[in-house]
Amino acid sequence: MATLVCSLIIFTAKAEDKTVDIADFAKYRRADDAAPMIRVAIAYCKQIRATKLIFPKATYYFKRDLAAEKYVFMSNNDEGLKRFVFDLSGMENLEIDGQGSKFILTGFLSPFLLENCRNISLRNFSIDYVRTFHSEAKILSVDKSGMTVQFDRKFPYKLDHQTLIFTDSAGVVYPWSDLLEFDPLKKETAFMANDLWVGSNVPVKEIKPGTVKLLLPQITGIPGNVMVFASAFRLVPAFNISGSVNISFSGIDIFHCGGMGIVAQNSRDLFLDHVRVTPSPGSGRIVSITADATHFSNCSGKITIENCLFENQKDDATNIHGIYSKITRINTPYEIEVELVHKQQFGFEYLKPDMKVEFADATSIVTYANNSVKSTERINKEFTRVVFADPISPNTKLGDVIACSTDYPEVLIRNCVIRGNRARGILLNSRGKTVVEHNTFHVPGAAILFEGDASFWFEQSGVNGVTIRNNTFDNCNYGVWGNACIQVGSGILKRVRSKSRYHKDISIVGNTFKIFDPRIINAYCVDGLIFKDNKIEQSEAYRSNFSDGKAFVIDACSNVSIDGYDIRNAVDHVKK
Amino acid sequence: MATLVCSLIIFTAKAEDKTVDIADFAKYRRADDAAPMIRVAIAYCKQIRATKLIFPKATYYFKRDLAAEKYVFMSNNDEGLKRFVFDLSGMENLEIDGQGSKFILTGFLSPFLLENCRNISLRNFSIDYVRTFHSEAKILSVDKSGMTVQFDRKFPYKLDHQTLIFTDSAGVVYPWSDLLEFDPLKKETAFMANDLWVGSNVPVKEIKPGTVKLLLPQITGIPGNVMVFASAFRLVPAFNISGSVNISFSGIDIFHCGGMGIVAQNSRDLFLDHVRVTPSPGSGRIVSITADATHFSNCSGKITIENCLFENQKDDATNIHGIYSKITRINTPYEIEVELVHKQQFGFEYLKPDMKVEFADATSIVTYANNSVKSTERINKEFTRVVFADPISPNTKLGDVIACSTDYPEVLIRNCVIRGNRARGILLNSRGKTVVEHNTFHVPGAAILFEGDASFWFEQSGVNGVTIRNNTFDNCNYGVWGNACIQVGSGILKRVRSKSRYHKDISIVGNTFKIFDPRIINAYCVDGLIFKDNKIEQSEAYRSNFSDGKAFVIDACSNVSIDGYDIRNAVDHVKK
Repeated sequence: MATLVCSLIIFTAKAEDKTVDIADFAKYRRADDAAPMIRVAIAYCKQIRATKLIFPKATYYFKRDLAAEKYVFMSNNDEGLKRFVFDLSGMENLEIDGQGSKFILTGFLSPFLLENCRNISLRNFSIDYVRTFHSEAKILSVDKSGMTVQFDRKFPYKLDHQTLIFTDSAGVVYPWSDLLEFDPLKKETAFMANDLWVGSNVPVKEIKPGTVKLLLPQITGIPGNVMVFASAFRLVPAFNISGSVNISFSGIDIFHCGGMGIVAQNSRDLFLDHVRVTPSPGSGRIVSITADATHFSNCSGKITIENCLFENQKDDATNIHGIYSKITRINTPYEIEVELVHKQQFGFEYLKPDMKVEFADATSIVTYANNSVKSTERINKEFTRVVFADPISPNTKLGDVIACSTDYPEVLIRNCVIRGNRARGILLNSRGKTVVEHNTFHVPGAAILFEGDASFWFEQSGVNGVTIRNNTFDNCNYGVWGNACIQVGSGILKRVRSKSRYHKDISIVGNTFKIFDPRIINAYCVDGLIFKDNKIEQSEAYRSNFSDGKAFVIDACSNVSIDGYDIRNAVDHVKK
Repeated sequence: MATLVCSLIIFTAKAEDKTVDIADFAKYRRADDAAPMIRVAIAYCKQIRATKLIFPKATYYFKRDLAAEKYVFMSNNDEGLKRFVFDLSGMENLEIDGQGSKFILTGFLSPFLLENCRNISLRNFSIDYVRTFHSEAKILSVDKSGMTVQFDRKFPYKLDHQTLIFTDSAGVVYPWSDLLEFDPLKKETAFMANDLWVGSNVPVKEIKPGTVKLLLPQITGIPGNVMVFASAFRLVPAFNISGSVNISFSGIDIFHCGGMGIVAQNSRDLFLDHVRVTPSPGSGRIVSITADATHFSNCSGKITIENCLFENQKDDATNIHGIYSKITRINTPYEIEVELVHKQQFGFEYLKPDMKVEFADATSIVTYANNSVKSTERINKEFTRVVFADPISPNTKLGDVIACSTDYPEVLIRNCVIRGNRARGILLNSRGKTVVEHNTFHVPGAAILFEGDASFWFEQSGVNGVTIRNNTFDNCNYGVWGNACIQVGSGILKRVRSKSRYHKDISIVGNTFKIFDPRIINAYCVDGLIFKDNKIEQSEAYRSNFSDGKAFVIDACSNVSIDGYDIRNAVDHVKK
């Protein structure tokens, strides 16, 4: 019998299965806030090494007042001193089963933090927020002086002089930064709508309570469509995973959060099954979450995403990549100083003793040397001093980049539906074996993008064996975030592309492409590209702005094979 | 001979005096940034336990890129993940002598952090910034639609739609929040000028580069005066001191910083001699630093401030106080939960095992019980669980406050000049012996304020032996921040004042009051107030808005003695 003296109350657990029932902690629930109850229950689970924490099916409301707090740098989201309902840091061998419960949060509060966890399984609950981090308004009219929009009362706002400030019933401010138009009938971004980076200082005039005119003379939009006011920051991802191993999700609905849905860094073996990112049922909202559905930085082992639905989130469905650091100083023959360049990578610590790293030229992203880390000293969240085991290559120059060069994850994305979100479908950037099969894509940009650059995002890519089979590409590219269904978008300058075969062995087999836009593949710097046994179905779902586009645009590639399609007028140029 | 392998370079120090010369670290200076050099030198000083670090007299420029980083909660300033040039944390027995050097910083970078230091002496240097955290503009004209102002190019700005955003040459944004008018001829806040809490979203129109009209129909101001655009945050104090003992400053000029000049918390024995807070000579600026010149929270031992000049800072010259936490929950007969209420006190950790604490009613601030801390658990930066050695008083109720009830500092403020700053002179709130002598005050509010409240600032006061002698009060109260030269401003509701004698034994002897405004003393809840042998000189420096004010307004006091002044028509009411 494990016991815990906690605020002078003694709990008991069943000795065999070590299942803890949250109902036993009900006395720690405050009137409208179950977060203190979770805090006590988690401490107890830690103490008795509980194997399972179960929630009687119910709706649980969480506030930030008494939640756990930690300064968190989470890759591709915004850093900060944050609050978490479930801080599972350091825990092992625990299953949390919501049994169909609803977790409803208020304000800048993340549901889950998993730092240095092992064997954690999260099951059967949904995440939602009382007030969303973005706001939505119906477009009423557009004229020469601007656009008039109408907010539902679930997106409260106030005016400060002539500017629009989103708020909640407690007066908390929800900063916004840009606009994007959505089509509520099609439940997707409006045809060819682009992000309007207008900033939050747009002058506005309130016509009547709830109805506001944006005084932007150049703005366009279709009355009846929904204008989405984007959250300015990604401070509140739903699941924050760092330095963890074997984390699985099943039956999780993420109806809303203020950042990415599931984001993992420096972690191994991540399994998603029946995870749904979708707007809260009955909410009438067009947008689900405010950034990528999932995202994986410098992860390893296996990443499996199966039977998931990712729709209407404000960014890609997934992106699986490494991170490059820029060389800012060569101190000695063994020592350099490196910088994390992108603001949302600040504080990302991945360089560890004995780690194998590659040195790459920033312009071509061609790897020219390898080495092994001996020691590191973090100067601050941007700069790190790195000492290597061997002398650094004499070719090393300032501006080059380094990245981890081993432990790329195997990726399996199967039987998922990705649709209606902003931007792209999936960004495949792991050098591990990658299989994408039986998915359906209906996204406004490229369905599949191979990225990587050492100039803006500093995300390491360079795939090495990708199989894309038996998927349906259902009228993608109805927006501005791509130039083909399957696309290479790596930051390799044209003039050096001939030197680079950054990506290797991409096989596209047995898929169905329903296309209103002729552009199927746009690739460069690929060695080994097979396009075989795919079905192309012409569609009139939209009227293409690119009706004279080429089906296949291939530049600076080797070993390209495109079968079963008349490529005489389609391929731009193929270099074998 | 102490040696340090640092980036493969070997330094040597003189064995006897352990003096380190920063000149020996010149190779670590970057082109325009000496911060990396300081970082290496400090590490070396730590390693060899240097007794002195000297700077050849020169101008040293510091940038934030490679500076040390730490998340810092500094009482009465704004918390954050911050950068520091000199992170002396954990160091002992060190003197840093600038030998007349100028330290010039760029951006959000504090010069000094002293956490858990002992016996540190800082001497002979000045602190300034390339771009100030506030901005100043000359008022050109005022009409019905607003005010036209002209910025010198040292306060660069940009417009975002119709809002004004201050910036620097690197594009860094310097947020602003409110306005205050200064008189450049008198070098002080304009007569009876008040803070204009207009926020930074004021609509503006650029008349021509550098000249901007604030479209605020109600605004008033005098052409030729200077409008100061206040820094929105106090993120960058000059000297941040926490948990330290015996820290002394001499010959330090703080020409600018973005927060308080010298702020200490939970520290003991702090000595300031010849510290000057004043606008950079030759800068043409009206404002020195953006907040209080000095500030001390929950400090102990001795605080001595001698031969100092505090002028033109954007807040008080000093405030020496404790901090109250609010009781939000009574968990058990031994355990409560408390909250730090004021945003700028978040994260302030002062409750420690064995600390004696008082329990006080929030309305009257009357102490009704004492106890001793057994243990604490920090929930987050706002809430802490506290377990006491003895059962808590049955009178304890939610909303009451607790505070440390021992170790109040002895205070000596001598031979200082305090003038031209916003708000008050000195806020005396220590229960230790306090002597204020031979100072000159020329401030727009009360020269001396006794504060303390458990409702807004949550600052503990309740003085117990204050001698104010041989000072000159030179035409104070030319602004809006006071109702007498020497004033009680404690947050004790009128209806409960009769029950409270919060302050004890205040003796005002041998001072000279030059007054254009008749209001000399305004006091309540004082037991023991002596006013004796003071010289009152009538002045026509300003025309008082309060010419029919009483010289002495005394309410709910005991043992009051006012000598040498005709009080028949002056005293409002005295309760003995």
